[in-house]
Amino acid sequence: MRGFLVIGNKAVTEPFNINDLPGSAGRMDIMCRCIAQALFISHGVRKDVEIYLLLCGGTPFRAVRVCGGEIRNMAPDERNIAGLIRKALKNSSRRWKRSSPGIYTATMDFDELINELIMKYSIYYLREDGEKIQNVVSDLRNPLFVLGDHLGLSHEMEKVVLKHAEKVLSLSKVSYQADQCILITHYELDKFEHEIM
Amino acid sequence: MRGFLVIGNKAVTEPFNINDLPGSAGRMDIMCRCIAQALFISHGVRKDVEIYLLLCGGTPFRAVRVCGGEIRNMAPDERNIAGLIRKALKNSSRRWKRSSPGIYTATMDFDELINELIMKYSIYYLREDGEKIQNVVSDLRNPLFVLGDHLGLSHEMEKVVLKHAEKVLSLSKVSYQADQCILITHYELDKFEHEIM
Repeated sequence: MRGFLVIGNKAVTEPFNINDLPGSAGRMDIMCRCIAQALFISHGVRKDVEIYLLLCGGTPFRAVRVCGGEIRNMAPDERNIAGLIRKALKNSSRRWKRSSPGIYTATMDFDELINELIMKYSIYYLREDGEKIQNVVSDLRNPLFVLGDHLGLSHEMEKVVLKHAEKVLSLSKVSYQADQCILITHYELDKFEHEIM
Repeated sequence: MRGFLVIGNKAVTEPFNINDLPGSAGRMDIMCRCIAQALFISHGVRKDVEIYLLLCGGTPFRAVRVCGGEIRNMAPDERNIAGLIRKALKNSSRRWKRSSPGIYTATMDFDELINELIMKYSIYYLREDGEKIQNVVSDLRNPLFVLGDHLGLSHEMEKVVLKHAEKVLSLSKVSYQADQCILITHYELDKFEHEIM
């Protein structure tokens, strides 16, 4: 399995206007693109990938989990994905609850979510000053990559991630957008897996 | 300069419904994502990049040119970019005409567009059976990469591209979506440029 966790600093926690993802929905467009890049390849879905979003633009925070192996009828365009997130946010359960095939939400703070993720994954934090991912790609087992949206991670969240992270990893000297970081991470892992097969 | 040319096999050539990019607009969502991945990085725009679209979902075909060095007020979300393309398609001039800063359209067939591009660029065709891009990245001078949307290139278009292409290049054994191919191409070129600097 490969996992991603993206922090949406301003992303709203209630159903939102699908025609205003970058504005009143708090850069929900970034969240949608992260899901698309995590799960889609040409004419197919990555079934061995999960992506988690933590939406922090409301109180309490809401977590969204999207499982590549379970989704049905999801298309990679932002509007389609946004519609599925909006539907998921109609649920306000504290525990994971399914709103559509492969899409779950729960009310959760950052510590709770990380504590759940470390039971399943080895945590890697993507940050520009980290070790080059190319140097460690052969050592990654069941990785989950943590990254922020355009605002990065708060100091408090970063402290929690660093406590649990195996390593801090860097993709490039160029600063890419969050969805681009997800795709480049996939690309480096894909390249390694295809070389050894 | 780096350039990209994306063929939109079904992408419509008239102003379209911005709420139905994947459907009645003929997978215009793919075109929007290609523009976003060609031009945007975190908190910035790639000023040395141009992307051309050839919209083939109507007669005559329409070409769109977007120049990273000139655009203003473009955001990377699909809806924003789609609005700018829709505005551009209100023009039906045969020659390049500007509709917004950095965005131009013209009525043009594939041969005409390629004949214009070979005056400015060395052409490379991205196809899965090509030579690995990593092996030739140091030789690329003023490259323009040609790629298709989810339907690829028609046999006739492919013949024209192969006549003019310096090489056929491949990114990976994984089949990525068109916008993903653009980002991975940037990533490989960025990596090389930062290593030699």
